[in-house]
Amino acid sequence: MTTKMIHEIALTAKAASLKLAHLSVDIKNRALEEMASALDAACASILEANVRDLEVAERENISAPLFSRLRLDENKVMGMVKGIRSVVGLDDPVGRELMGMELDEGLTLRRITCPIGVIGAIFESRPDAIPQISSLCLKSGNAVILKGGREAQQSNKIIVNLIRDAICKVEGVPIGSIQMIETRSEVVDMLKEEKNINLIVPRGSNDFVKYIQENTRIPVLGHSEGICHVYIDSKADLNKAIAIALDSKIQYPAACNAMETLLVHESVATNILSSLVTEFHRVGVELVACEEVRKIVPGIKLAVEADWNTEYTDLKLSIKVVSSLSEAIEFINAHSSGHTDSIITEEATSAEQFLNEIDSSSVIWNASTRFADGFRYGLGAEIGISTNKTHARGPVGLDGLVIYRYKLIGTGQTVAEYSGDNAREFKHNPLPML
Amino acid sequence: MTTKMIHEIALTAKAASLKLAHLSVDIKNRALEEMASALDAACASILEANVRDLEVAERENISAPLFSRLRLDENKVMGMVKGIRSVVGLDDPVGRELMGMELDEGLTLRRITCPIGVIGAIFESRPDAIPQISSLCLKSGNAVILKGGREAQQSNKIIVNLIRDAICKVEGVPIGSIQMIETRSEVVDMLKEEKNINLIVPRGSNDFVKYIQENTRIPVLGHSEGICHVYIDSKADLNKAIAIALDSKIQYPAACNAMETLLVHESVATNILSSLVTEFHRVGVELVACEEVRKIVPGIKLAVEADWNTEYTDLKLSIKVVSSLSEAIEFINAHSSGHTDSIITEEATSAEQFLNEIDSSSVIWNASTRFADGFRYGLGAEIGISTNKTHARGPVGLDGLVIYRYKLIGTGQTVAEYSGDNAREFKHNPLPML
Repeated sequence: MTTKMIHEIALTAKAASLKLAHLSVDIKNRALEEMASALDAACASILEANVRDLEVAERENISAPLFSRLRLDENKVMGMVKGIRSVVGLDDPVGRELMGMELDEGLTLRRITCPIGVIGAIFESRPDAIPQISSLCLKSGNAVILKGGREAQQSNKIIVNLIRDAICKVEGVPIGSIQMIETRSEVVDMLKEEKNINLIVPRGSNDFVKYIQENTRIPVLGHSEGICHVYIDSKADLNKAIAIALDSKIQYPAACNAMETLLVHESVATNILSSLVTEFHRVGVELVACEEVRKIVPGIKLAVEADWNTEYTDLKLSIKVVSSLSEAIEFINAHSSGHTDSIITEEATSAEQFLNEIDSSSVIWNASTRFADGFRYGLGAEIGISTNKTHARGPVGLDGLVIYRYKLIGTGQTVAEYSGDNAREFKHNPLPML
Repeated sequence: MTTKMIHEIALTAKAASLKLAHLSVDIKNRALEEMASALDAACASILEANVRDLEVAERENISAPLFSRLRLDENKVMGMVKGIRSVVGLDDPVGRELMGMELDEGLTLRRITCPIGVIGAIFESRPDAIPQISSLCLKSGNAVILKGGREAQQSNKIIVNLIRDAICKVEGVPIGSIQMIETRSEVVDMLKEEKNINLIVPRGSNDFVKYIQENTRIPVLGHSEGICHVYIDSKADLNKAIAIALDSKIQYPAACNAMETLLVHESVATNILSSLVTEFHRVGVELVACEEVRKIVPGIKLAVEADWNTEYTDLKLSIKVVSSLSEAIEFINAHSSGHTDSIITEEATSAEQFLNEIDSSSVIWNASTRFADGFRYGLGAEIGISTNKTHARGPVGLDGLVIYRYKLIGTGQTVAEYSGDNAREFKHNPLPML
């Protein structure tokens, strides 16, 4: 599609978003239910389309993990259906009152949540991302422009067509609510639509997210790197320490919330490092370490500076000895990507210091870094994990897709009445929430 | 200063922000009190420095409004002192719990507000902006890099030196909390510090804010344009309509929340337009209008397309007749800058439709657009007004300078326990707020 066509798509999305913004939760849920039923009924056709994608993928010799993410089966399609229905069950994030204040008699202010507007969602090979993101956007009253992976072209097309036809069965839901673009040059054009697109949600590799962040003026919700730390304090329970360090590294090493660097307080290093290294070697984790670690456990490769700033997303780990909690905090704030960092200690004051002074979106005491996730946090659904310092941070649920507006209801007031001599005074009485 | 020096300033600010983030409200308030006392005690020296700025300004023939914003007197300095003390009285925005959830027995999640980090505040001639912005940043635990107007150089320098020396009297408050840069080329360098500066707050002309927005990857909190509408509905009380329309235009025409376009429903146009035009002409407002208005009140200049997209910030107004509420809503959503729009009507359903369907940060029923302001909204203090669709919208108070982090407190849990066969199940019990 040409730049002009992408502009039209963005305008259509914006027009749709204005209608979506004030749909009742009932209508939105009916549209979601139609989406779910449509995918359920068309499972066979979805799998057929997916086979065509898989054939191309095989010819092109794509990597095994990519192939497995691309491949759909009946279970995965039923997972999509179930996922959409779980979004039906979530509370409407729109129309919630965040603040109420009586400014004066007959002059009342309320801060009410509303959708952001138009979301651009860009993601890689998994076709299951389409119903997931579409349902979250619809529930939060946002229009969405989807860009899926090229590998999943056929699967994506049929899924988007099914859900678009489905939502239009419900009166009031505009067809422009869900649109799809397909090529990289279309993405480039989409990233320029800052007047009509309000938020970009990219999912994919670090480089991919970094490219998006560096090539648009539209706010981006996401994270590129996930360099997470576990710090084993001098007062750590050593059994907990070993269990948590292992889980943080190996439970799913490709995840962004997996540990990349382990810090160990010098007073427990001698006691714990041999067991830890044995455990890590047993499960096939490659280790690099500082000189102090190598003195205690010989034979580990020396870490170079780059190691402390690398997200391995693999069975590899850097280990460093530190001489104090403060050194650990300083090191983490310098090297962490602000994603998730954990302290293992039995000493509450040390834990508190760590939780207060580490500048990351999730700070954890005596639990695995792998807990930092929308489902585990009980957010109901996850749009993504954000390491931004504005808008939304950490695992982001539906409430990351809304903002608010102020509604002021008066009875004819002018500002002149509140100015100059004999000015009326504001009351500013906080009101109970509706 | 060189690019490298600006980078050093940004790094110093970041280091300071990490310390500021966990200062107690008591320490922050003591530092604010020191700031206030220091300005109070040095009033004479501040006025002396200001005279030097005024002398240069006179030689350079700056405009009268700029000169008056630049000029300090004892009252204005006491206003700064009072302003800082009012920030002492505000609740600490940091450390508030936004959400609590028991994920499982002994595994508790809390979402807690924390500072954003480093704020870059760029503003024009008024030296009073320095203590105001500095006190709001300090109270919210953010480090700030200030860039004031060139005209106010001498005044800004002495004020910044006074408040920096003052806050350092309180143990724990880092000197890098408040820094100043002075030239435009330094601003250009600052806008590139996206790794160390988390939010830019620009205050000034539309062009100035637009320049900032287009030249940085750092999130910008602000608005460039304020094209605000008043819509007089078919069921409007005509006395309220005239009073509110006048107030919205003339109470302070240079403000961003002043009305630029007045829409009138055709069924009341004949009845109301003559009186309205008479009133506007009486107070010297220049009018342009659509053909329908000109048929009812001859002699008004025809509005051209550009008029509907122009913020006059002056005694000038565009008037248009519309044939329905829906037309008014559509017109406003197409031409408004998303700042503030008001409906005048006695019909609740029409008002509700307007408040729900207008996509602006403040939507108002039967009151002047001029109410859209942090002080009038009772926010205690205003950082600025934002027309962004993410993070903070409308008049932004102290809570626009914080974000949150997740604190997860466990007792040794690993994610493996919650996966696979015999997986533990999460409880996800919402907790009462602390």
